[in-house]
Amino acid sequence: MEIEIKENIFNANDQLAADNKAKLDREAVLALNLMASPGAGKTSLILQSAKSLSDRLRLGVIEGDIASSIDADNVRSHGIPTELINTGGACHLDANMIQTPLAGIDLPSIDVLFIENVGNLVCPAEFNLGEHLKIVILSAAEGADKPYKYPLMFKVADAIVINKIDLMPYIDFRTGYFYDGVRALNQQAPVFELSAKTGEGVDAWASWLLEQWNERFGQGHGEPDTSR
Amino acid sequence: MEIEIKENIFNANDQLAADNKAKLDREAVLALNLMASPGAGKTSLILQSAKSLSDRLRLGVIEGDIASSIDADNVRSHGIPTELINTGGACHLDANMIQTPLAGIDLPSIDVLFIENVGNLVCPAEFNLGEHLKIVILSAAEGADKPYKYPLMFKVADAIVINKIDLMPYIDFRTGYFYDGVRALNQQAPVFELSAKTGEGVDAWASWLLEQWNERFGQGHGEPDTSR
Repeated sequence: MEIEIKENIFNANDQLAADNKAKLDREAVLALNLMASPGAGKTSLILQSAKSLSDRLRLGVIEGDIASSIDADNVRSHGIPTELINTGGACHLDANMIQTPLAGIDLPSIDVLFIENVGNLVCPAEFNLGEHLKIVILSAAEGADKPYKYPLMFKVADAIVINKIDLMPYIDFRTGYFYDGVRALNQQAPVFELSAKTGEGVDAWASWLLEQWNERFGQGHGEPDTSR
Repeated sequence: MEIEIKENIFNANDQLAADNKAKLDREAVLALNLMASPGAGKTSLILQSAKSLSDRLRLGVIEGDIASSIDADNVRSHGIPTELINTGGACHLDANMIQTPLAGIDLPSIDVLFIENVGNLVCPAEFNLGEHLKIVILSAAEGADKPYKYPLMFKVADAIVINKIDLMPYIDFRTGYFYDGVRALNQQAPVFELSAKTGEGVDAWASWLLEQWNERFGQGHGEPDTSR
């Protein structure tokens, strides 16, 4: 029975995720599901991406948190349209939770939607939200063994970000061991090494985002319209 | 129905947890449930605690991981009796999962059992394992806002460890903000600031563990017997 219930939950979620995606596609909005451990720097990466992309793509954000509006307030204070979901204990977002905040964002006025998931390297990997890309962010301070210990997250990732590379001189991050672990699970996902604190490496990540938007929506929509 | 199922799960778990605890009490073994985000340094803290306590308390370890035996192999290589549970995807340990590894450890030959939970600051907080003390470990690199964002974990903690204080000069950890967040949820839990890498601050933590053992088992058992 447990398996049956779980399958039903996943099927229902995937149906809602497909609805969300259709809505995003209609408005040519590229949606990213940002997943990471607590404190890996998801919000800082959003803010640095906004800075780097400011004259090229218009951003919106859905902030998922168990409690508090700390991140949402922070992002909003930078003038970025932001909707908050407090999951009230739930350890991940799902497609249903996204529907109300998605309706709250003026999609025609944005090109990229960052959905910041609950800080958790386990549960979010199992639930589609309707995103185009799943992004996994690792803080270098967490150590290089994470792909071996949390394989599903690195398997489903469309791109992987190693954040906080400014700490590299002070930690023992075994880079080769990390890449070996990632490539055993996932041959395709590009890996971006950056510091959302100093900005180092953020431009390569931002250019990749622009490419991703162009690949999907460039033809029918021309350049993204940033004149609002 | 969802609520009813959830209540039944918690009740069944608490019954098994009570069984586990009775077993530990009979053998005068103090059990600690170590909970933290991925990469906060749970295993390193176990190894440093073993070093600091080596002539005072005998340790055993249950290593909980979704996949891999990296941590278990590491702890075992230091001569510490260790049992491994791979949860195969599950995001936390529960009292039932503990039963087999608990039977695998020779309880009369140890005084303290560290149970390393799955790296996750959310789900493990909801499940008793039969431990005497819940310990939450935060890596300083995760940032000081964690009690605000993951309140349940800090609320249930019997002690809180801030690990990786060797990184303090390179990060922006707002110590006052962290303590304000903790004390709003939890007035009692002692907070230990330490580095499991350099060993700084570990002795205060280890002395507290010894006190905890003595409080519960010192009377009937005298000093813990380390002559094995």
